Amino acid sequence: MFNDPHLRPLPAAHAATAPTLPALRVGMIGLGTVGTGVWQVLRRNQALIAARAGRRIEIVSVAVRKLPRAAGVLGDAPGVLLTDDPLQVATHPDVDVVLELAGGTGPARGWVLAALAQGKHVVTANKALLAVHGHTLFAAAAQHGVVLAYEGAVAGSVPVIKALREGLAANRIDAVAGIINGTSNFILTRMRDAGVDFASALAEAQALGYAEADPAFDVDGVDAAHKLALLAANAFGTPVRFDAVHVEGIRALQALDVAAAAHLGYTVKLLGIARRQPGGVELRVHPTLLPTHQLLAQVDGAMNGVLVHGDAAGPALYCGAGAGGEQTASAVIADLVDVARLPTDGGNAQQRVPALGFHAAACADLPVLPMAEVVTPHYLRLQPRAGVSEAEVTQALAQLLHDEGVQAERLDGYTDGSQPTATRHLLLLTQPVADAVAARVADRLQHWAQGDVVRLRVAGPEACM
Amino acid sequence: MFNDPHLRPLPAAHAATAPTLPALRVGMIGLGTVGTGVWQVLRRNQALIAARAGRRIEIVSVAVRKLPRAAGVLGDAPGVLLTDDPLQVATHPDVDVVLELAGGTGPARGWVLAALAQGKHVVTANKALLAVHGHTLFAAAAQHGVVLAYEGAVAGSVPVIKALREGLAANRIDAVAGIINGTSNFILTRMRDAGVDFASALAEAQALGYAEADPAFDVDGVDAAHKLALLAANAFGTPVRFDAVHVEGIRALQALDVAAAAHLGYTVKLLGIARRQPGGVELRVHPTLLPTHQLLAQVDGAMNGVLVHGDAAGPALYCGAGAGGEQTASAVIADLVDVARLPTDGGNAQQRVPALGFHAAACADLPVLPMAEVVTPHYLRLQPRAGVSEAEVTQALAQLLHDEGVQAERLDGYTDGSQPTATRHLLLLTQPVADAVAARVADRLQHWAQGDVVRLRVAGPEACM
Repeated sequence: MFNDPHLRPLPAAHAATAPTLPALRVGMIGLGTVGTGVWQVLRRNQALIAARAGRRIEIVSVAVRKLPRAAGVLGDAPGVLLTDDPLQVATHPDVDVVLELAGGTGPARGWVLAALAQGKHVVTANKALLAVHGHTLFAAAAQHGVVLAYEGAVAGSVPVIKALREGLAANRIDAVAGIINGTSNFILTRMRDAGVDFASALAEAQALGYAEADPAFDVDGVDAAHKLALLAANAFGTPVRFDAVHVEGIRALQALDVAAAAHLGYTVKLLGIARRQPGGVELRVHPTLLPTHQLLAQVDGAMNGVLVHGDAAGPALYCGAGAGGEQTASAVIADLVDVARLPTDGGNAQQRVPALGFHAAACADLPVLPMAEVVTPHYLRLQPRAGVSEAEVTQALAQLLHDEGVQAERLDGYTDGSQPTATRHLLLLTQPVADAVAARVADRLQHWAQGDVVRLRVAGPEACM
Repeated sequence: MFNDPHLRPLPAAHAATAPTLPALRVGMIGLGTVGTGVWQVLRRNQALIAARAGRRIEIVSVAVRKLPRAAGVLGDAPGVLLTDDPLQVATHPDVDVVLELAGGTGPARGWVLAALAQGKHVVTANKALLAVHGHTLFAAAAQHGVVLAYEGAVAGSVPVIKALREGLAANRIDAVAGIINGTSNFILTRMRDAGVDFASALAEAQALGYAEADPAFDVDGVDAAHKLALLAANAFGTPVRFDAVHVEGIRALQALDVAAAAHLGYTVKLLGIARRQPGGVELRVHPTLLPTHQLLAQVDGAMNGVLVHGDAAGPALYCGAGAGGEQTASAVIADLVDVARLPTDGGNAQQRVPALGFHAAACADLPVLPMAEVVTPHYLRLQPRAGVSEAEVTQALAQLLHDEGVQAERLDGYTDGSQPTATRHLLLLTQPVADAVAARVADRLQHWAQGDVVRLRVAGPEACM
């Protein structure tokens, strides 16, 4: 029974609810995975959602790219206006809220602006749109006194925007560290658990529908950077600064380093990290070694997890499905319920939850620290070049670290037995050190190495509980 | 720097905020751990909280039991009315919101009712009060059109009430399973990690301030049952049914079973479980074997974690500090911020987030299933009595299981080497079976056992991700 929730009838009392307020009328743009999920969940849980929201939430119009395909999803939907013109939905007089689920940044920007200009609330799951055009769009929403909500844009079903804007409103947020791209997390989990390389894990993710044919946005960290920019704005009261995020993906990550990290007691995760520092904030996405016993290190597969450090709450972790049609629909509909719960007989708009957590007048454009100045522990791996002993390299390394003022946390040897000929590697974990210094150490070590010296960052307290 | 957030000044832009709305005036009853935390966090983050809430939140009166002690906490607080009469705070004309942090169920009920009757919003962290008198209090709040909020009553800093009422509003909730008592979780973690017995772990918890001198509420499961009743109401749209929760604590748990569970790959956690079934809902608090690799099994120490299964979102886990002054203050102040964000120029009260997630007319009193009918896998341990071989007991066990229609999942031997004389035990994990049947099996096995046959429940899918 537990595994088949869809078959259970609603309890009678839910079905019997008859809210007296008029329904909230939704116009939906896009009927892909998320749009289909929203349609299905709203249908299935209609009475239950009305019982929570105090009024019904009804999709009254849908804009799709290909009209014939829509019929397969919508089935018999009398009274629903079906069109291939998104602008018609965005500006239709019968629509209270526009749901933008088409994706992309160009045309979507126009539809959202058109809807806001008509005094319609907008709910979107489009992180790229908000990361790139957020400044304009949030300003337009404020100008017209309407809501622009985007819980579905970050970490799928996990209500982390709500947690930051409301649940943790008492806190000075010191850091946010999250696994916010399910595709990358699936790939990294497979690389660790099955010992396969990036290309194989990617192919597997593609076969299972976890990765797109062109996986660049996911595996190169861009999608995570979009989401991080939104999280950081809500955490710190800063504008959305996607352009300032330091972004590295997982494409270059070698199976050998995943295994060597495991040998040292670490799991490699693609983290988005926003951290407050005295001189500004860090905004960065990169593969990160995380102690394996940490909860965040065990958020595996396509799951997302966001760790938030507040000065009062302490560390808190929220995790759940990061993608999927119904999973993202859960967040999108939560935004619709928030809108449905707005007062229908007035209420000053400026008293609502601010779009980015802080009232605009209170936002501060804290400087984003250059990556070179970001201080973290580091992992370095090198294979001593032919004719040089491990002892010689170790000695040179010690001298080099001394010259650069870097403290070693741990030095270890590692034998890679995955190839026909086993190879021997030196692994170094450093104490926290500025990124530029670690890069220079890696460069100078290159002299002693066969192949590239590998440098990865290790998580600090921002990713630990 | 990261470890000393209190010393950092606020960014200038936060301090510069000057919201134009009048401050929200708070009257606080109780100045214990949580009250002190609220006072400190509101002071420290005042400008930042105003920047989020759109107006200042100010404590204007405080009721304490012992006036002299209050001065030590409040320091120089001009303009704050200090009294030892809670009713004065609850009914004071200058108070917009009453913060009830005194605890207990008797007098607190009267103060809260008095405040609600005067049209004041109430925020409380008092789970016992709401678990026992919730029906009356929520009805009074609805009658007077005011908010009765209680995020701090469940899972400390974790905004799980908000997640259920708002973030997951699209979902039919199938189950909630949580570690919602930090004291018990600390004790269980120490029993597992240090191999000590309950009494030693409890003494340690008391020495560290994690357990009270009289630990009954925590270790006997009552506190967890209070919280579970509130979680279940929000999950299922049912009334608060604390009286119907099946409650077992951890006092009788033996170190031997913690070790034997680990041998089988399980960790013992005190879980509060609310699960929807065809015939009603399960409401139960008891020690539970959880597969060690599960995330919830790794929510350790005084941490809380709540796992929610929604039909759209899938499983989601929220974890963080479950107790502590500032940690609970984080949740309490979040409720105050919600109140501060209510429209000040009207707005229909029935459009607010309902106190228990569902509008009252839509609540259904689903029957609570008797524990005897609850179906879970079970763990059984027995030490064969003198003169009976392991083979004989195994044979008798097989016959008995056959008679009772119970399927064995796993049968294992375990040697307890913690005593001067090692003892040998039989461990059985069953397939899911009704509680009454498992109890009968344990009873009948008693014939073959030296000492008590131990029976514990094993987590089902409701506690797994």
